[in-house]
Amino acid sequence: MRIVGPDELRAALSPRLVLDAVRGALIAHAEGRTTVPPPMHLVFPDVDGDAHVKAGMLLGEATFTIKLATGFPHNADHGRPTGGGALLVASARTGDVLAVLDDQGWLTAVRTAAAAALASDGLAPAGPVSLGIAGTGTQAALAAQWLRELRPVEHVLLWGRRPEHAVALAATIDGAEPIEDLARLREADVIVTATASRQALFPADAVRPGAHITALGADMPGKQELPITLLRSATLVADDLDQAQDHGEIARLDEILRRDVLLLGDVLRDGHQRTPGRTTVADLTGLGIQDAAVAEAALAALSF
Amino acid sequence: MRIVGPDELRAALSPRLVLDAVRGALIAHAEGRTTVPPPMHLVFPDVDGDAHVKAGMLLGEATFTIKLATGFPHNADHGRPTGGGALLVASARTGDVLAVLDDQGWLTAVRTAAAAALASDGLAPAGPVSLGIAGTGTQAALAAQWLRELRPVEHVLLWGRRPEHAVALAATIDGAEPIEDLARLREADVIVTATASRQALFPADAVRPGAHITALGADMPGKQELPITLLRSATLVADDLDQAQDHGEIARLDEILRRDVLLLGDVLRDGHQRTPGRTTVADLTGLGIQDAAVAEAALAALSF
Repeated sequence: MRIVGPDELRAALSPRLVLDAVRGALIAHAEGRTTVPPPMHLVFPDVDGDAHVKAGMLLGEATFTIKLATGFPHNADHGRPTGGGALLVASARTGDVLAVLDDQGWLTAVRTAAAAALASDGLAPAGPVSLGIAGTGTQAALAAQWLRELRPVEHVLLWGRRPEHAVALAATIDGAEPIEDLARLREADVIVTATASRQALFPADAVRPGAHITALGADMPGKQELPITLLRSATLVADDLDQAQDHGEIARLDEILRRDVLLLGDVLRDGHQRTPGRTTVADLTGLGIQDAAVAEAALAALSF
Repeated sequence: MRIVGPDELRAALSPRLVLDAVRGALIAHAEGRTTVPPPMHLVFPDVDGDAHVKAGMLLGEATFTIKLATGFPHNADHGRPTGGGALLVASARTGDVLAVLDDQGWLTAVRTAAAAALASDGLAPAGPVSLGIAGTGTQAALAAQWLRELRPVEHVLLWGRRPEHAVALAATIDGAEPIEDLARLREADVIVTATASRQALFPADAVRPGAHITALGADMPGKQELPITLLRSATLVADDLDQAQDHGEIARLDEILRRDVLLLGDVLRDGHQRTPGRTTVADLTGLGIQDAAVAEAALAALSF
């Protein structure tokens, strides 16, 4: 069993390798070439923490992956990272555990940011975009950087529940402006929501018709970022229908609308023909197959 | 992150420590003092392999545990162990991954054998017993040894689907006799079934009324070892009702009977008043809290 540390992982995986791995994983998933069991979820109410366990396997690949990702927000009170975790990579031929990836949450962060960027790029109107971001956590911090791997981002509007956090994060992102009024998101072509909200962050008219939204926050039942009126009138895309129906934004829609949800992997493979003036929403819950794909990419880059 | 290897684990954990940890875990589980998400299950049809992921946390404990356990029977064709896996132990306060237990399946094997022995000892008629074992795999090999930690076992009858395997295994167990006719299980006070069967191994009358059966084989939907007529007339005990109803022996019973199932943790805490002539069945699916408890015990013994 080999241990791969966080620095080794960062050195091994370029943004291009992560994007290629995640794109391939999402397409394979849409084509039914993956095994992705329902995730596990543990909560730690005393410290407002949670943990997710996800597993994934690309059919025919030599390995499968089990991923633990944790979120303990009070770690920040002690100047420590809020995200953590590790991955076990095992042989799909013998079950042998081949490697422990001591990613401390980094692989989860970048595979999520990569999927968000791929969704935003695949669904937003063509050309340079202005980007609105709701949230000031890890995914908010990564959103502009990863979308810029795929297309120009001219202006970034950044909103946080606590304005001082938005000011601080905006200072670290090229072309970013902190905003206090979510109505200014109407200036954005692409909006990324990455909060722990349990209710709609803004009314439907805070979004310009024809804009694209990538929603990342709803990772367990009860979480919600978007108003249901917006979902009802939008073109909906999900990374996985079961997970999105269980705990994503679309969990609140009735069965008939759910049938109209597109799979992100299909969009990435075939492209998407936009309807002018129609908003698109990518509801991303995060898949174990993304973890498996970036783990495989890391091990391949390390000549494992 | 500390790595604890298989030899270190074996040296740290005596049978007494494992039995105490598993007994405590099962009692805590019956009392609702645990978090045990539904397990994950992956299958590898090309090589007839499977993998389970289980998680567990004792409320108030400092850590939680994620366990991967694999079963790849064709490893035996190459003289390699069929069971494998590893555990991640993480802080319930910060999410930090504290240790990787490179148990290669050993902790899963011993915590399962310990629960089986505790169930057999807690439910069988008092005094020395004769033990019948169906199966020739890891749990069959451990059944007599672990029950002998708790009470005398005078005679062991060992049946395998392939008689030569039963002969070979019986040669390694004190007082064991290989049998080809399952009807001879009527000589046993306690029967442990530990096979991968998908149908009843024997008819109900192969079991002496008043005997106790601990069934370990049904670890996923579709597996079965006991005839339903036997279940209908027996006192039923399960380690966890949800898991047993999902994929244990009792998954085939109707709702009314399920209501009468006792929890093993309650039996271990309070004892069990046998009804003369009535067979008891312990339907064990294996809980993530057992993994968490033996992991905690190992780390405590290693002064972690």
